[in-house]
Amino acid sequence: MEEVKVYGAWGSPPSHRVEIALKLKGVKYEFIEEDLKNKSEELLKYNPVHKKIPVLVHNGRPIAESLVILEYIDEIWKQCPLLPTDPYDRAQTRFWAKFIAEKITPAVRDAMLIPGEDAEKKTEELIELLHILEKEIKEKKFVGGNRNKYMDIVSLYVIHWIPILQEYSSKHVLTREKFPGIYDWIDQVLLDCGDIMENLPDKNKMFDVLRVIFGPRNNYKPT
Amino acid sequence: MEEVKVYGAWGSPPSHRVEIALKLKGVKYEFIEEDLKNKSEELLKYNPVHKKIPVLVHNGRPIAESLVILEYIDEIWKQCPLLPTDPYDRAQTRFWAKFIAEKITPAVRDAMLIPGEDAEKKTEELIELLHILEKEIKEKKFVGGNRNKYMDIVSLYVIHWIPILQEYSSKHVLTREKFPGIYDWIDQVLLDCGDIMENLPDKNKMFDVLRVIFGPRNNYKPT
Repeated sequence: MEEVKVYGAWGSPPSHRVEIALKLKGVKYEFIEEDLKNKSEELLKYNPVHKKIPVLVHNGRPIAESLVILEYIDEIWKQCPLLPTDPYDRAQTRFWAKFIAEKITPAVRDAMLIPGEDAEKKTEELIELLHILEKEIKEKKFVGGNRNKYMDIVSLYVIHWIPILQEYSSKHVLTREKFPGIYDWIDQVLLDCGDIMENLPDKNKMFDVLRVIFGPRNNYKPT
Repeated sequence: MEEVKVYGAWGSPPSHRVEIALKLKGVKYEFIEEDLKNKSEELLKYNPVHKKIPVLVHNGRPIAESLVILEYIDEIWKQCPLLPTDPYDRAQTRFWAKFIAEKITPAVRDAMLIPGEDAEKKTEELIELLHILEKEIKEKKFVGGNRNKYMDIVSLYVIHWIPILQEYSSKHVLTREKFPGIYDWIDQVLLDCGDIMENLPDKNKMFDVLRVIFGPRNNYKPT
């Protein structure tokens, strides 16, 4: 009997990556909601290096880092592959997943959630990164035009979280007018992946939590 | 006829990762040395996102990011596998490779090469990361005790570059006394991988370049 546990948090994009991958594969798992201000002893034991969610625990053995976990899930449960089969497409997918997880995600945080004195500069940096993504999507149709589930899962940050965060912060950086390629592609993913979008965190619940952590924003009006 | 090119730089650890992997696989390649102060148009074309070496160009198609390239090389040329076969060992390998490439490497740079006002704090942070590695190696024998070529290649940063950088900067952080586990493991890799160590950059040549870029260090004496 297989035991699969996910230590995560309901509002966290990396945590949702792991849950969605398991759902796509049809793998049953137990979800343990972590209080990020008071992390459990188990989480600290399972991820002593980064002390972060998500952690997948498979038959007692922990794996940390969401992109590493996605590769593990894809190797253990072969049904409904996440990564493409062609090595070049796999490399392109890994490259762009890394770009979204390690470049765009912190840039959004810096520009929208913890803008300091250099808020303008941080916003410019984010816009520059989004232009790189836009150019890739328009010219090369993103990871070579071959969409795959791995990329769709990682892209949910752009599709679901950025719109919420920019509404909350009133920094409307990613708009359909300025980034039509990204929006066309968002539309396609939404069309195909309605099922995996179902359990993503609710906008208004996110706003409530963001207000507690980061304070109210001047122009924010509940919708 | 297969065309394999590597755009790299002789002193760069990520660049050597790619070259060593190709050598282990017995793949012939053309090496293009980049002048990092005046990058070639080809490099900027092949890696417009990060504008960084290394880039592997395989039959005209570019791949960037050294860890992504290692996975690609391992998938294209099956001989002499880099990653282990067991999914859990693969996940552990990817986790620790990421730790060395994305945590330890910038921490060494901050502590040894560009120490600012907070030099002490940066050194403490590096020591903390090395203790994490030491603990992993002593308790769990590193990636589950199963050494593999992928990890050996990524670990060369700890084995070859850190000793050079700490001699240059006179910051002797990684010592045999304080980190016996890391040194035992370095000894093992050196014993097994003499062949792949052959073309790593020479210490004195590295010192010459470091002095040009970062200036002379107070306590540095040529050996």
